Amino acid sequence: MEEHEMKALVLEEKGKLALREFEIPGELRPRDVRIKTHTVGICGSDVHYYTHGKIGHFVVNEPMVLGHEASGIVIECGADVTDLKPGDRVCMEPGIPDPESRASKLGIYNVDPAVRFWATPPVHGCLTPEVIHPAAFTYKLPDNVSFAEGAMVEPFAIGMQAALRARIQPGDVAVVTGAGPIGMMVALAALAGGCAKVIVADLAQQKLDIIAGYDGIEVVNIRETPVAEAVAATTGGWGADVVFECSGAAPAVLGMHQLARPGGTIVLVGMPVDPVPVDIVGLQAKELRVETVFRYANVYDRAIALMASGKVDLKPLISDSIPFADSIAGFDRAVEARDTDVKLQIVMPE
Amino acid sequence: MEEHEMKALVLEEKGKLALREFEIPGELRPRDVRIKTHTVGICGSDVHYYTHGKIGHFVVNEPMVLGHEASGIVIECGADVTDLKPGDRVCMEPGIPDPESRASKLGIYNVDPAVRFWATPPVHGCLTPEVIHPAAFTYKLPDNVSFAEGAMVEPFAIGMQAALRARIQPGDVAVVTGAGPIGMMVALAALAGGCAKVIVADLAQQKLDIIAGYDGIEVVNIRETPVAEAVAATTGGWGADVVFECSGAAPAVLGMHQLARPGGTIVLVGMPVDPVPVDIVGLQAKELRVETVFRYANVYDRAIALMASGKVDLKPLISDSIPFADSIAGFDRAVEARDTDVKLQIVMPE
Amino acid sequence: MEEHEMKALVLEEKGKLALREFEIPGELRPRDVRIKTHTVGICGSDVHYYTHGKIGHFVVNEPMVLGHEASGIVIECGADVTDLKPGDRVCMEPGIPDPESRASKLGIYNVDPAVRFWATPPVHGCLTPEVIHPAAFTYKLPDNVSFAEGAMVEPFAIGMQAALRARIQPGDVAVVTGAGPIGMMVALAALAGGCAKVIVADLAQQKLDIIAGYDGIEVVNIRETPVAEAVAATTGGWGADVVFECSGAAPAVLGMHQLARPGGTIVLVGMPVDPVPVDIVGLQAKELRVETVFRYANVYDRAIALMASGKVDLKPLISDSIPFADSIAGFDRAVEARDTDVKLQIVMPE
Amino acid sequence: MEEHEMKALVLEEKGKLALREFEIPGELRPRDVRIKTHTVGICGSDVHYYTHGKIGHFVVNEPMVLGHEASGIVIECGADVTDLKPGDRVCMEPGIPDPESRASKLGIYNVDPAVRFWATPPVHGCLTPEVIHPAAFTYKLPDNVSFAEGAMVEPFAIGMQAALRARIQPGDVAVVTGAGPIGMMVALAALAGGCAKVIVADLAQQKLDIIAGYDGIEVVNIRETPVAEAVAATTGGWGADVVFECSGAAPAVLGMHQLARPGGTIVLVGMPVDPVPVDIVGLQAKELRVETVFRYANVYDRAIALMASGKVDLKPLISDSIPFADSIAGFDRAVEARDTDVKLQIVMPE
Repeated sequence: MEEHEMKALVLEEKGKLALREFEIPGELRPRDVRIKTHTVGICGSDVHYYTHGKIGHFVVNEPMVLGHEASGIVIECGADVTDLKPGDRVCMEPGIPDPESRASKLGIYNVDPAVRFWATPPVHGCLTPEVIHPAAFTYKLPDNVSFAEGAMVEPFAIGMQAALRARIQPGDVAVVTGAGPIGMMVALAALAGGCAKVIVADLAQQKLDIIAGYDGIEVVNIRETPVAEAVAATTGGWGADVVFECSGAAPAVLGMHQLARPGGTIVLVGMPVDPVPVDIVGLQAKELRVETVFRYANVYDRAIALMASGKVDLKPLISDSIPFADSIAGFDRAVEARDTDVKLQIVMPE
Repeated sequence: MEEHEMKALVLEEKGKLALREFEIPGELRPRDVRIKTHTVGICGSDVHYYTHGKIGHFVVNEPMVLGHEASGIVIECGADVTDLKPGDRVCMEPGIPDPESRASKLGIYNVDPAVRFWATPPVHGCLTPEVIHPAAFTYKLPDNVSFAEGAMVEPFAIGMQAALRARIQPGDVAVVTGAGPIGMMVALAALAGGCAKVIVADLAQQKLDIIAGYDGIEVVNIRETPVAEAVAATTGGWGADVVFECSGAAPAVLGMHQLARPGGTIVLVGMPVDPVPVDIVGLQAKELRVETVFRYANVYDRAIALMASGKVDLKPLISDSIPFADSIAGFDRAVEARDTDVKLQIVMPE
Repeated sequence: MEEHEMKALVLEEKGKLALREFEIPGELRPRDVRIKTHTVGICGSDVHYYTHGKIGHFVVNEPMVLGHEASGIVIECGADVTDLKPGDRVCMEPGIPDPESRASKLGIYNVDPAVRFWATPPVHGCLTPEVIHPAAFTYKLPDNVSFAEGAMVEPFAIGMQAALRARIQPGDVAVVTGAGPIGMMVALAALAGGCAKVIVADLAQQKLDIIAGYDGIEVVNIRETPVAEAVAATTGGWGADVVFECSGAAPAVLGMHQLARPGGTIVLVGMPVDPVPVDIVGLQAKELRVETVFRYANVYDRAIALMASGKVDLKPLISDSIPFADSIAGFDRAVEARDTDVKLQIVMPE
Repeated sequence: MEEHEMKALVLEEKGKLALREFEIPGELRPRDVRIKTHTVGICGSDVHYYTHGKIGHFVVNEPMVLGHEASGIVIECGADVTDLKPGDRVCMEPGIPDPESRASKLGIYNVDPAVRFWATPPVHGCLTPEVIHPAAFTYKLPDNVSFAEGAMVEPFAIGMQAALRARIQPGDVAVVTGAGPIGMMVALAALAGGCAKVIVADLAQQKLDIIAGYDGIEVVNIRETPVAEAVAATTGGWGADVVFECSGAAPAVLGMHQLARPGGTIVLVGMPVDPVPVDIVGLQAKELRVETVFRYANVYDRAIALMASGKVDLKPLISDSIPFADSIAGFDRAVEARDTDVKLQIVMPE
């Protein structure tokens, strides 16, 4: 297999980043495209590998290139690629399944155990000037969607997956517990996906202030008002049609059934590190349905369509753009987790 | 049973309307409310009874009060009514099922054969100063939803039912064939319900111009461009996720499978008078799902929520308001079917 | 309101049963029927009220008639009853909702907060010679379904509800954790509902031996074999399509995700008294859907149809029949919970 | 590419079969298996190509090997095959999609326009001693499923697809209009998939007599009794939950809404050659859902599981076994379409 040496943001080991030349294996197969990366968002998981060296049983045992939220320009196409051509502005879905696996045949390729996902050990990410990627997981950006927005498709895709799993019905009222970047994406996807109103609850007022800027969003600072009280007030005591649990916090999980209407739905997006107590009888008494979310499948085109149509505007959530040369400083800023930052992006050199 | 004599718009027989005193039977049972009607929209079915004296096997055999799209103010509550009080601004769902029927127990009370529906023979409508209605089918209007909009909930509910039956997924592309009032309602419900884009096709340019004023709507005049061509262009040849057939026109029905993507959905809203040819093998080759719509169930609250949240603005579709005293002239104008009229409404006296 | 004095099995207070004359209020309204009860099953909840005096926040504060699993014969019909007539053999759905409530209109009348359910304080049960019941919740028994089987419809309905909520696809493999009476009902409903195979896991071998007598059931004694191992062996490592958690036991809940395939379903039937730890990340990694069950809605007719067609045979689960005169002894036997008893039934005098 | 010359049943042109040496291109790629074919069923489509030279726009322009309902034994595995090994008894899914296509990513690979399907021009079928096939579309047969039954999985898969699309709920009553081989498969899949009862209607009594041999099947000879009358009698006037239209006959299509209950489902399995009239208002008045079926996806494993568990017994539908050497005579017998033949199978030489 060919190797390409190029500058990359490398996580050498826990706590140690380097911007250095790196040999990345890869060959352009007939259905692949070569892409010049343009913008790469910094994800919480990238930061977590940096600070902890692992996530669950995924451990960084040798130097790994970070980054998986990316947009770029196609610069070369494999022989059998028909839908893309050099010059196309694109964004890339970072998880590549075995297309013939049992899960993939079912259309749920995100839960294929064989998925290879950028910047998840031992797979390298895309904080490099060039990447090779299957055309089937590379999506054209419409003219009115910028590279910066294109690099937002990946985190928004999680919100989309949550909205899809919820099976929102037009006019639903939803609640999002937890206003981190993913909670915000979920709230916007739920609104675009048919909710009449989305109540977002958190205890960080600065985060709430950012998301409160969108029409259709109602915010609740749970330091001041119990979220169950706010939901009851908004829904006349009936409860929310959909509860998106995005905090992963044990108290939120324990009380989530109180927010839902009889026959409603809970979507578990937040990921508590350890098992947490769930009030099963509380769920049963309203016969709630609980959906879970793992990354996403078949949502990139939908996400892009909503962004292109103007129904979803993610630009206000891009807090800053950082040149590739300063990307280590960018990661350190992300570690600080300023309350006013939602998403930091790294821009690759021309 | 009590009778109340009051002025009503009465369809005496086919082609003959009278605005006259009329005895309307009715008593306020414990779970009913008495409502002073405020605004009543003129529906195509009202007009059809006026001009044809029947719809299908529903025949006007004796004088019948018209009207079923209504808003008003509660003026009296039955003894067991708890959710409403005099003074509440409301709109009314015009079909009352047997709540203990097999269909009602299943939640599909719209297809309960025992439904009694305003202005469907032999049931009187609501073009009268007062009506008695079950509280369970009377819905409060939020402060920011006017009486005029309240009287639009009924036709919009059909659009909502179509959107619900479609099971829209966030980011879907939809096509609506037929830009009559119902087609417009469907298009707006589909957009509010999660579609990224809705293509509306018709051959009346004035209708298309009205609906084209909404963001997210793309219009196609089929005199100029075959709708299949427009859909293919917009979707890169893949087809629309959802096709709402709202014309009832035989050619539209025959070709509807061509507009859908593989695995897509068709919703039959338009009602062709007689059986029409369907290309079953065409539907099968893409394994399409075909849903049908009959009025609506459990959508009034959702419709109102979307209107209150600002996601759906029906005001541009209200073409004119006509005083109750002029309602016969209003019906005659509706018979003319001016291309610029979408919805005419009759306003009751103070 | 009329009162009828008749002999009833009365729970006077926690731990104290009496078979005595009791005044039961009730009048035959136009859509009600009067039923001579024939057979009444003893449910775990009846026994629990007897031994504990309460279930959750439902507390027995005054004498209450027990029993809610019943069959009988119609002896009188209200004026508006059309589907039933005296002499009809029937079984009765014990929970009566407000038919005009928001939940009932949605078809989920089981989660209507206003439901009145037999033998749930303060509502009296049916261990009396006669009961009055709405015709809409009274179901005719086909000739080939006995009274004893008719009294099994209620517990089987819970299994049916679980099978419905699971949305079984033909040929699914299911696992049932917990082989109590409800676990057995769930297993049989899952089989009748399309599963190719149902694996039932428990640690009581005698219970497993009973359910193992049915075709399509595979049993696992978890004292000998971890259920995850058995499921992996049967499914080639892929996992079960549906996991019905019927034990309510904390270890079963904690490990339930291990039994499911990627994209599979868990149905929570068992009711742990307190919140129990759930491995949310474990659920997410396979993107499982978790359904919950609360009693049942719209399943009595389906349950009876499956019994009448011979697809479900519940007779082997009827352990013994006890005359009404001996019903206190019957309850004491149920408290003992003999390993060989699945369902005890009380037969009313002729 | 390699070519393998071997004896095959070749459709030279319309009306002309030959059993002769034929060069079949093919190479064993890393994820393919080589299979010695054992049994191949004769399908109506094979016969139709023989008698008409085409089906729709699929035209036999050059000699083509027939056959697509097959079982066999693995004799060689590609380098990357892990789930199969030489000696495995298998059956083969005859349609191979592009696994990276948009439809395949969605899990609906059956409607991938790029599918290559055995014995559909220009793709050769499997009436040859050996075939090369992707391991991902080759399924192991359990020990208790014979080669003859293994070759029945393909037609039964269509029944399974229909049952899946119907979303049968446990205890449903279904109607099958048309008792041809596919109608029979649909009836058995519907029963195994949870129906309490399946009413099968046809005018050929001999076909009805065959399917009437199964428990749970009720047959109606429409020469004697209108099917709507039979359904009304069985369902107390409510209608069937699911109607499987398997005849493709215009009168059956026109009247199909009369057989369904309010809110019920129609599954279109039969394929009328030309567009046929559909009573759209009839469908709407009951708000029916209409599903269509195109081949199948993700059902082979489910079909095999039901056969292995004993819930589905297809052996009574195998009318006769014909040696490969006599296969032209076999096809001629199939053209005759004896009323007592359901499925003829060709057995390859040892």
